[in-house]
Amino acid sequence: MAARKRQPSDAPNKPHGPPSSSDRRGSPAARSHAGRGGRERYIIGVDLGGTKIMVGALSEDGSRHVAMRSVPTQASQGPEVVVERMVAQIEGVILDTMAQTGCSRNDVVGVGIGAPGPLDRARGIVVVAPNLGWKNLPLRDLIADRLGLEATLDNDANCATYGEWWQGAGRGSKICIGFTIGTGIGGGIVVDGQLFHGASDVAGEVGHTTIELNGRHCKCGNYGCLEAYASGPAIATRAREVLVREESASLLPTLVNNRLEDITAQTVYDAATRGDAVANEIVRDTARYLGAGIANLLNVLNADTVVVAGGVTAAGDALFVPLRAEVRRRAFASAVDAAKIVPALLPGTAGVVGAVATFKQATMGRV
Amino acid sequence: MAARKRQPSDAPNKPHGPPSSSDRRGSPAARSHAGRGGRERYIIGVDLGGTKIMVGALSEDGSRHVAMRSVPTQASQGPEVVVERMVAQIEGVILDTMAQTGCSRNDVVGVGIGAPGPLDRARGIVVVAPNLGWKNLPLRDLIADRLGLEATLDNDANCATYGEWWQGAGRGSKICIGFTIGTGIGGGIVVDGQLFHGASDVAGEVGHTTIELNGRHCKCGNYGCLEAYASGPAIATRAREVLVREESASLLPTLVNNRLEDITAQTVYDAATRGDAVANEIVRDTARYLGAGIANLLNVLNADTVVVAGGVTAAGDALFVPLRAEVRRRAFASAVDAAKIVPALLPGTAGVVGAVATFKQATMGRV
Repeated sequence: MAARKRQPSDAPNKPHGPPSSSDRRGSPAARSHAGRGGRERYIIGVDLGGTKIMVGALSEDGSRHVAMRSVPTQASQGPEVVVERMVAQIEGVILDTMAQTGCSRNDVVGVGIGAPGPLDRARGIVVVAPNLGWKNLPLRDLIADRLGLEATLDNDANCATYGEWWQGAGRGSKICIGFTIGTGIGGGIVVDGQLFHGASDVAGEVGHTTIELNGRHCKCGNYGCLEAYASGPAIATRAREVLVREESASLLPTLVNNRLEDITAQTVYDAATRGDAVANEIVRDTARYLGAGIANLLNVLNADTVVVAGGVTAAGDALFVPLRAEVRRRAFASAVDAAKIVPALLPGTAGVVGAVATFKQATMGRV
Repeated sequence: MAARKRQPSDAPNKPHGPPSSSDRRGSPAARSHAGRGGRERYIIGVDLGGTKIMVGALSEDGSRHVAMRSVPTQASQGPEVVVERMVAQIEGVILDTMAQTGCSRNDVVGVGIGAPGPLDRARGIVVVAPNLGWKNLPLRDLIADRLGLEATLDNDANCATYGEWWQGAGRGSKICIGFTIGTGIGGGIVVDGQLFHGASDVAGEVGHTTIELNGRHCKCGNYGCLEAYASGPAIATRAREVLVREESASLLPTLVNNRLEDITAQTVYDAATRGDAVANEIVRDTARYLGAGIANLLNVLNADTVVVAGGVTAAGDALFVPLRAEVRRRAFASAVDAAKIVPALLPGTAGVVGAVATFKQATMGRV
């Protein structure tokens, strides 16, 4: 069971005091009936990233999104400060939700947290998070104890995929694979409405699949991972390499005042949108790499939906047309025919929505 | 539902006559109780390959294997002749099973068929089987009608994996991936005791995953597939290439009377076992390719067991030691730690055992 149950001895130091009727809530099963016939209940979702913390509340049925907000993570200040900032944001969201919906604090039933992995779901621990500098942090219980609320923990890319499956581009899918392209390439797999976690919570690391045996070095230690070619920083690196190697006329240097080190993936998308040939070549190559990675997963998992999220989707058809063509060149026709490859529909909020979904699945057995 | 139900109007041309009490069997659910308290019941498994047809009977609980046999497929004679040969083999297995166990023909409850794909399980059709030269052959019903027995159809590599999961190297596994290395590289995925078929029965094509973006051409049309490097023919091709390219002292030419075109994967394994340096290099390279392919799947599926089947496993530690090392170099530590990578335990019979398991799963909802 992934959920941290609140114990009678729990919940010290709650800035806004303990819920006045905390004993009324009891077990998850009991609570799942408590709201019936009464006011709407709310679940908090938290999406903890290397650069920002996104928090919001959803009504239990997912139909209402309330009080969405984000603050910088500032991981360099250490885990205690980051946890404190998360707690403060959650408290703020609870107060805003009460103000906006008229619900009481007791109608807030828990917190789903999405965090970078690898992590130990059963014990609620972030095992290693290089971007945060964390090791073996019992994040779930730190949050649950400070708030006096039940909490669950899952992988951030899993949450983003689960959010898209629940309310976004993966709605109705039976086998849904998510690719989230940012600083790295994360992913998730949803089968028959449930996240596929694997034997030790590592499943869904779609960015760390070799597509080039002796290829570029990846942060994970491997060579030739998809992430080493198609993540945001990899896109920027490839652009810089082309500019240094070739005497091409390109907007890119102008966009960064000739400081090539300032080129980011976003610079590349901007230039591509303005018709820059070099930038468009970089986007086409990105589509080829992503296409190979997606084709591999279609031949293995035969998914009906692949959701691609992240800044790169801003390139639109310039990305998706060559991407779909590459997938068709590489994968079996019957696997390609069965799958739609679509941009995410919940940019920014998929992680929060999915964190709420993982809380529901872990504590109520349904989404 | 994948099973072909026998209809009253079915079962013409049965060489040994219709079952005398065919009406006693009724629905799968009814039949699953019919044998209780009576004699042991048997299920026929068929493993249809490009070169041979393997057939045998298993007691319903899987504990007894009876009358295992194989005949050449001789696909060039056309589908009608091959189907006739399959039916004759199955009839022979039924008679032998009756003779060896004392069961009656009515105790033989059905036939599970494993065949090369892609196929349409629900309709029991082999959609395309290049090695057999078949297109859109309703194999399941052809067999069921000729025998007057219920039949089911599944992919041959799926069956081999399911057989290993049920009674071989994958026993007790919750997430099991099979790699079967022969003329091609087939595979299967078993999750929580059930084959993972995907959205259109293509799932588990582990051999057709790109590990080298612009690599060797594969029969599937793609470039750089694992199969193009590590299948039996690919292993032989790589050996020939080394011999032509380099002036290496090697046993290999001698083993084939200097006819390099006669080198097969088996020749390579034989030479490697006798300490030949070139052959051992080919085996080590094979381990690297397979290691990359397996690492990709561990990062995506986080399996607890990977079963490697096929002639290449005869190389033993010469294959498995560098293979496991390559997987550890490439995949996440927590995924590698969670997985055992082991040789298959049912060479030759896994396909038949798994075909029986797929029949049980499809008609009785359990294995």
